[in-house]
Amino acid sequence: MKQSRLYIPTLKQTPNDTESISHQLMLRAGYVRQVSAGIFAYLPLALSVINKVETIIRKEMDEIDAAEMKLPSLLPVELWEESGRINTYGDDLFKLKDRHDREFILGPTHEETITTIVKERLNSYKKLPMVLYQMQNKYRDVTSTKYGLLRSREFLMADAYSFSANLEQLDIIYNQIEQAYRNIFEKLDLDFRVIYGNADLMGGTESKEFSALADIGSDTIAYSDESDYSANLEMASSKLPDNPIEAKQTSELVETPDVHTIAGLASFLNIEDAKIMKAVAYMADDQPVLVMIRGDYEVNEIKVKNFLEVQTLIAATPDQVVKNFGSIPGFIGPKNLAADVKVLYDSSLEGLTNFAVGPNIRNKHLVNANFEDITDGQPEFHDFRVVKEGEISPDGYGTINFTKGIKIANIFKLGTKFSKDFGANFLDEDGKSEPIIMGSYGISISRVLSAVIEQHNDENGIIWPASLAPYQVHLVPINYSDDTQKRLSDEIVKLLKDEDFDVLLDDRKERPGVKFADSDLIGIPIRVTIGKKAADSIVELKIRSTGETIEVNKDELVNSVKILLKNQ
Amino acid sequence: MKQSRLYIPTLKQTPNDTESISHQLMLRAGYVRQVSAGIFAYLPLALSVINKVETIIRKEMDEIDAAEMKLPSLLPVELWEESGRINTYGDDLFKLKDRHDREFILGPTHEETITTIVKERLNSYKKLPMVLYQMQNKYRDVTSTKYGLLRSREFLMADAYSFSANLEQLDIIYNQIEQAYRNIFEKLDLDFRVIYGNADLMGGTESKEFSALADIGSDTIAYSDESDYSANLEMASSKLPDNPIEAKQTSELVETPDVHTIAGLASFLNIEDAKIMKAVAYMADDQPVLVMIRGDYEVNEIKVKNFLEVQTLIAATPDQVVKNFGSIPGFIGPKNLAADVKVLYDSSLEGLTNFAVGPNIRNKHLVNANFEDITDGQPEFHDFRVVKEGEISPDGYGTINFTKGIKIANIFKLGTKFSKDFGANFLDEDGKSEPIIMGSYGISISRVLSAVIEQHNDENGIIWPASLAPYQVHLVPINYSDDTQKRLSDEIVKLLKDEDFDVLLDDRKERPGVKFADSDLIGIPIRVTIGKKAADSIVELKIRSTGETIEVNKDELVNSVKILLKNQ
Repeated sequence: MKQSRLYIPTLKQTPNDTESISHQLMLRAGYVRQVSAGIFAYLPLALSVINKVETIIRKEMDEIDAAEMKLPSLLPVELWEESGRINTYGDDLFKLKDRHDREFILGPTHEETITTIVKERLNSYKKLPMVLYQMQNKYRDVTSTKYGLLRSREFLMADAYSFSANLEQLDIIYNQIEQAYRNIFEKLDLDFRVIYGNADLMGGTESKEFSALADIGSDTIAYSDESDYSANLEMASSKLPDNPIEAKQTSELVETPDVHTIAGLASFLNIEDAKIMKAVAYMADDQPVLVMIRGDYEVNEIKVKNFLEVQTLIAATPDQVVKNFGSIPGFIGPKNLAADVKVLYDSSLEGLTNFAVGPNIRNKHLVNANFEDITDGQPEFHDFRVVKEGEISPDGYGTINFTKGIKIANIFKLGTKFSKDFGANFLDEDGKSEPIIMGSYGISISRVLSAVIEQHNDENGIIWPASLAPYQVHLVPINYSDDTQKRLSDEIVKLLKDEDFDVLLDDRKERPGVKFADSDLIGIPIRVTIGKKAADSIVELKIRSTGETIEVNKDELVNSVKILLKNQ
Repeated sequence: MKQSRLYIPTLKQTPNDTESISHQLMLRAGYVRQVSAGIFAYLPLALSVINKVETIIRKEMDEIDAAEMKLPSLLPVELWEESGRINTYGDDLFKLKDRHDREFILGPTHEETITTIVKERLNSYKKLPMVLYQMQNKYRDVTSTKYGLLRSREFLMADAYSFSANLEQLDIIYNQIEQAYRNIFEKLDLDFRVIYGNADLMGGTESKEFSALADIGSDTIAYSDESDYSANLEMASSKLPDNPIEAKQTSELVETPDVHTIAGLASFLNIEDAKIMKAVAYMADDQPVLVMIRGDYEVNEIKVKNFLEVQTLIAATPDQVVKNFGSIPGFIGPKNLAADVKVLYDSSLEGLTNFAVGPNIRNKHLVNANFEDITDGQPEFHDFRVVKEGEISPDGYGTINFTKGIKIANIFKLGTKFSKDFGANFLDEDGKSEPIIMGSYGISISRVLSAVIEQHNDENGIIWPASLAPYQVHLVPINYSDDTQKRLSDEIVKLLKDEDFDVLLDDRKERPGVKFADSDLIGIPIRVTIGKKAADSIVELKIRSTGETIEVNKDELVNSVKILLKNQ
């Protein structure tokens, strides 16, 4: 392709109002332009990358017998009323009316639509399982649009939907799609983690998120430096060292006037934080809940919420501590509370001996306490802790590190919510009518573009991996008006095209400095410069990622390019 | 691909409320489902066809150095207010507001958007010409939605926009795109005509329409049976035989009481219709206009409107004939009319002698009249005639036939309307700022699918041309549970895939009759049936278009398929 025929409006300056490197580079390198807040035009270079990503996705989805289709964007509002999601999505939905005053929405996802379509025919276990996928624009009227393609209002998704007759079929497909997605992101050269999502909140079924590591990411991921373990900080756990075994001492009520914090108590008693049993009081919906945890840890409220299966979890006010817990702020503990208080114990407390704990008596603490001093039986322990960096991975391999990530995909075991909403039933082997068991899966193609750029760039611009670069080779004659250079350039274009390489030829009448700067900014993996030595058929290859250059004769060119691209 | 993993809800009955064969067949063969009036889901078979059409379009557009991009569908309303098209499109536009009450439309076309984007950088003649194209959903809230993909509200278009520095550049690109479109439609095996569009109404620049011949089409096309000539009936002309040369006689005013029609006058005077000069009175906007035409022809009002460059042309009422023309209904003619009446002469009158004509006197006609009897000078003649079948093609080759067509594409020389609206200017070679000269081009992919099916079907279903069939080979084992048949089927799938054929394997547990009926309905070019002779590695090939069958050994299969597909 001739560069003069592509629209690539590169910019010298970093544009204002851009919060992420990928957004800045996509604007500077002339890949996208914003048409309205969060709504983008994909210019030729970006579309070329998108087409490559789509081809990679298509190939992997075909491998697992998933079939491509395309649902409309304009959806009758009735579908979303039926599922109730018209309310849960709220103002994020774009709504409109047609000339007959019928209401529509612009689809942000398609569970409702696909369910109403497949129920016509997926009426027997013999016709299951099935996986259908599509690649198309989605719509979401998000408020913050400063991150470019990371948070856009019209964005490209590859979304898939699975239909199974039983949970085993669902598991097989779910795992196949997880593997397909892993293959896709590996081909795209993304450094990513597959993390456990907040499944319980989605109705008790399993979910995972694919997160591309990047400082701009809004998710904190806890991952092991030696194993595959990774999870959103909200969901992460870790393996704690056992509490030291000690001979149990006799507990004693001591005066602790004006001591209201863990640090204060530790200092006052001259003990470690780890020897204090901390109590944190919450109102969970309307239920008073006291979470006990070791003094050197913090409570992860998401874990508590998921465990209790409640909608809200709010720290109790001092008034509530008195009224709902029957205690005194600063001195709360598990014993002698109001009858309906639920007490939870974090697993950090398992095996703890001779600890300090609140006695629910003003200005006092119980010291050298043990579990028999505060509970009747042995309590159950669960994980309610915020994981810390440096802890041992829950699988026992490596230590936990934190990193930031961009959510690029997720996979959900949906269960039967939508099949029940829309009456999508099938007859099982015993002739019994059952709702189809569904899964939902999606890759945000727009975000993938951003994530790849976040991970592959330098001060001069984008550095595309060969698999999704808009072109593989950038041919830059210093002076395309020069006959010798032009002849050699055109010959090389033909040589490379015959080997199926995508070539961009910079045929513009620009100064070499401008051409080189644009080339670095655009980020094609290999630049071939054709200059003074054109008469001797010698050209320079430059590797974008390393900056290395080598001179080769045109006869060695195709082979050199092949080797270099393989090593990218 | 395994048929059990595709969603193909075939139907035995023709669905109600479907007016076109293509719509019926797309529903019956399980290609599409309607989600809402005029809004369709493309199921796997349809998407496969669409992907093939898009690949063909992409290849031809690449050939002419056009660059693919993708503009958003959600467009700020301000762009359409600026161009004024918010009014001309009216209720056909889908309009909506975002959460901040800002107004948007769903784009039916993208001249406004692309112009605002390219004006940033296409600021010099050095950067022109350029052609950008995209393939994406368009939106138009049309009222009649009974024709399936022929008139849908969300539809797929491949639209292109060209930017030139001068009219010569525009001509070159316009011709290149016309040729590219011709190549595309030939590859799609469409019987089509390129016809001259109603250019004058679009601001005096040139346009052409690509029309696929089909009885369901809403356009009437006049074409020559021996040359390339074709035009919309509204625009079509023809070559008339000269009027016979006769010695001029002396005119005479005769009584013609109660004669109000051409037929009546011809019969009363015992002359041919062709010897009468017919007068048709119109109000053109507010101007009285009298169109004179030979009695055996009809006036084409579109031609009159275009010639006069008026908005409305309405037949004059008897009152208006009296008041605005100063005449008497039934006896109107060109002489002695009110001063401001404009008289037009159709070219059928050129050289006519000794004719009958209205004298603007009640119950009288002037007979044996000649031009000097009714006008001062020799009048100008123009083409205002409705062409008739059997007339000579205007290029002199062949005679005119009529046919119905589906508009599948059009190409427009836009000129500078949009570049002026949005200030898209460039500096020419003399450093002078000029508006960019634009062109606009579009293929309706949704209609192409319909048009191909309208032209390629029989009573059993669709008959796809090999170039865009969803699969090239349909492998149908009579009983896929039978080990021998399964082994041979799987082996043949591999043989064909190794040669890059797209294969659909009917692995369903259905009766052979159901499988064969579905296969014919779906319309894949070659069916390979694997039955009893599987043990001897013998299979049956069936050609969908002719119904012919041949038996071949699996070793000859790939070669046979290659030859058969080449001849499709």
